[in-house]
Amino acid sequence: MPPFDLVIFGGTGDLAMRKLLPALLHRYVDGQIVAGTRIYGIARDERSDEAYRERVREAVAAAAAADPRVAECVDGFIELLHYRRLDLSGEAGWPEFAAEIGNDPDRVRVFYLAVGPGLFAMVGDRLQAAGLSGEGSRVVVEKPIGKDGASAQVINEALGRVFDESQVYRIDHYLGKETVQNLTALRFGNALFEPLWKAEHIDHVQITVAETVGLETRAGYYDQSGALRDMVQNHLLQLLCLVAMEPPASLAADSIRDEKLKVLRSLRPIDNGNAAQLTVRGQYRAGAVGGKAVPGYLDELGHGSHTETFVAIKAEVQNWRWAGVPFYLRTGKRLSERMSEIVVTFRQVPHSIFADLPNASPLAPNKLVIRLQPDEGIKLWLMHKVPGPGGMRMREVAMDLSVEETFGGRQPDAYERLLMDTVRGNPMLFMRRDEVDAAWHWIDPIRNAWEVNHDAPKPYTAGGWGPSAAVALIERDGRTWHEDEG
Amino acid sequence: MPPFDLVIFGGTGDLAMRKLLPALLHRYVDGQIVAGTRIYGIARDERSDEAYRERVREAVAAAAAADPRVAECVDGFIELLHYRRLDLSGEAGWPEFAAEIGNDPDRVRVFYLAVGPGLFAMVGDRLQAAGLSGEGSRVVVEKPIGKDGASAQVINEALGRVFDESQVYRIDHYLGKETVQNLTALRFGNALFEPLWKAEHIDHVQITVAETVGLETRAGYYDQSGALRDMVQNHLLQLLCLVAMEPPASLAADSIRDEKLKVLRSLRPIDNGNAAQLTVRGQYRAGAVGGKAVPGYLDELGHGSHTETFVAIKAEVQNWRWAGVPFYLRTGKRLSERMSEIVVTFRQVPHSIFADLPNASPLAPNKLVIRLQPDEGIKLWLMHKVPGPGGMRMREVAMDLSVEETFGGRQPDAYERLLMDTVRGNPMLFMRRDEVDAAWHWIDPIRNAWEVNHDAPKPYTAGGWGPSAAVALIERDGRTWHEDEG
Repeated sequence: MPPFDLVIFGGTGDLAMRKLLPALLHRYVDGQIVAGTRIYGIARDERSDEAYRERVREAVAAAAAADPRVAECVDGFIELLHYRRLDLSGEAGWPEFAAEIGNDPDRVRVFYLAVGPGLFAMVGDRLQAAGLSGEGSRVVVEKPIGKDGASAQVINEALGRVFDESQVYRIDHYLGKETVQNLTALRFGNALFEPLWKAEHIDHVQITVAETVGLETRAGYYDQSGALRDMVQNHLLQLLCLVAMEPPASLAADSIRDEKLKVLRSLRPIDNGNAAQLTVRGQYRAGAVGGKAVPGYLDELGHGSHTETFVAIKAEVQNWRWAGVPFYLRTGKRLSERMSEIVVTFRQVPHSIFADLPNASPLAPNKLVIRLQPDEGIKLWLMHKVPGPGGMRMREVAMDLSVEETFGGRQPDAYERLLMDTVRGNPMLFMRRDEVDAAWHWIDPIRNAWEVNHDAPKPYTAGGWGPSAAVALIERDGRTWHEDEG
Repeated sequence: MPPFDLVIFGGTGDLAMRKLLPALLHRYVDGQIVAGTRIYGIARDERSDEAYRERVREAVAAAAAADPRVAECVDGFIELLHYRRLDLSGEAGWPEFAAEIGNDPDRVRVFYLAVGPGLFAMVGDRLQAAGLSGEGSRVVVEKPIGKDGASAQVINEALGRVFDESQVYRIDHYLGKETVQNLTALRFGNALFEPLWKAEHIDHVQITVAETVGLETRAGYYDQSGALRDMVQNHLLQLLCLVAMEPPASLAADSIRDEKLKVLRSLRPIDNGNAAQLTVRGQYRAGAVGGKAVPGYLDELGHGSHTETFVAIKAEVQNWRWAGVPFYLRTGKRLSERMSEIVVTFRQVPHSIFADLPNASPLAPNKLVIRLQPDEGIKLWLMHKVPGPGGMRMREVAMDLSVEETFGGRQPDAYERLLMDTVRGNPMLFMRRDEVDAAWHWIDPIRNAWEVNHDAPKPYTAGGWGPSAAVALIERDGRTWHEDEG
């Protein structure tokens, strides 16, 4: 790839230091970022290139310590870094910066908006005013894209006034994870799965994104958002789309995004009438995670709140392929373990020839478990004969494929792929505006139903698996949340 | 299980010493053979119980040395053993033996005919004359059941004059192997495979039974038989049946055997007209196996011969499920490694969305490999995304399930299961008379075609994979014999 410019607004912030700059360093180590490339950190305060470089050097120290190959490259990488002070509410610094960056349509300029969504429009306007929004420019925005459909529209329209939709990259870092990518590889690179991938053969799907952390440093934002907006609207729905979409005709970005959009638009609406049956909200109380006592949400927050830190939803994709197949979604903070997975549970065999055996236990249905974290990989649960003379005894066993064991080496972070995709101009793993709209279109009525019904979140003890109502949500259908027995 | 009597004709022979008695010892160790059980070795020469017991003690010494639990039980097991001299051509010994055994219909008597098939009729007649063929009696016979359909009929009719078909147990020890049993468990205990298990989704099936040994001690028998009769007529066709059969309604022996029979009767006939296209015969020449020089077949034999030590066949099951799907069978002596496996190769994906990627290699079709020996287990070959940022690169990977690793412990020998099944009265894993007839009905015209066409076996070097014509047999269909890359 030729040299490019990457400009990080919020260049001294947490996301830049913890994720973006280490990711760029790794891409530099692998030779994907060449000399002549410039990486700019932008913030409000005065700071020299040298001071900024020192700060980044500290931020990547852990990555360098882990691998001598990385350590060797730090000096070269640091040379690519620059710091510029820019005023978002005024003109200060902009003309000089614009002159420095230039507007060569053949040189890629990526503007990464690692700032609050309230500033997206403002940065966009400044870039336009400075003549930096033309061909060759791309803008990357992080969730949240709004807090509902209306506010998302405001943001998207503000960006749309400055940039063409093809220049806008809406990041959902879940889509950059290896296992999420591999979901597409598995479904469409193998003849095995697709014939089974439908209501005829699949009983239900579970998608779990469980965190052990509590509020961390984002209390103000999170209490305004809650788990539904923070996690379900983007990550969980995106995963659901990749599981449920029809085979795209190609890997072209719009081919895939068209299919995902169709799934979002096929979701069975949840509103006042059925939200109580199909959704569960929860909020954690004090408890213990990993053997360590932790306070409750309200204690961390310091005031009362009805914000949910857990949500479980029974969704359904209303089309020919999936009619009647529940997609059980759940996500929450302060759960028992940090774990994200998709579990596809197949139907029972139509007739068991083993049922008459003495002491026969029922056949467990087959399951395909796609583990996003930790220990990315896939597991296929099968029934297998227990060896030994005597009758045919059956036992559930797992065929296991760990990405790390199979392929070895460091597993690159999602941001490495996503950042380079913005440079490369490949929007496949980014959300198109109509996807964001469609996701909010399904989410907004759920929030609204909760408000109208005064649905207070149900308390759950930190370190568990959410409120008992979330267990009831699936158990009353005669199903059970998947727990990996090893 | 209550006490029983097991009588081994050929009680001092190789099969008894190497397989049957060690197998019985292991069943004794596991408590399946209780006090009061009597195990008789029968042969022609005079010998005391003590002398016989000493000989068996030597035969099981290796098993005892391998496991202290077994060693502890040897004395108790030896106590169950007796030796009797019986004259098969006369009356000598029979009245006394009959009095000793008795004819209690409630006590199981298993007569194991570990003698040449030429003696089956004679032993049957003696047992009948001695009043030992009634209710409670079972007779076990080993392959070969004849050398063609006509001679098999003679044997089966001789046995049928003495015993009801339900009393006759025709052993094919391949059917006692764990992985072969597990094939039924996999196909019908999992909802995953059956929808794919048909011509629509399966490209072809390979069944390989490869030996490294040469003639060993069986030169006289083998040269009269050859690989087609010695291996294909029984082992390979039985494996083919288990892969291809329709789901039986239950595990009842006749339910399964009816389905296997239907497969045998659906095999596309091979005769003078198509044998040259569909079959390959081979005979090994001198070479090296496992780094050790070995002589050719004719050198081992000491005279000229047109007997085949290798055979490859392209078979087809002509029914709705399998029409057009080749079943490639191959078996031989002095091949590269001792290995038996079934490989089910699925069809290509109908459309690759990965084809447009730079440097895209073609997607390898999915494969399910069922390994019978060594290292019993199953392997599912899938296409998986190669981790790393950058494009979507696909690689073939294997999900692996080793029976030993998964279940641990000693893997019991096939004879342990089969012997106890005869005592238990479970004929599921034994060949019914009509199965034997149907197998010969397909085999005989192949032999006949070879004779009529003067089809001399093609030479192959010991230590390889048979004659090049066997490679051509599958390659001209654009397919390749499976080789496990690890």
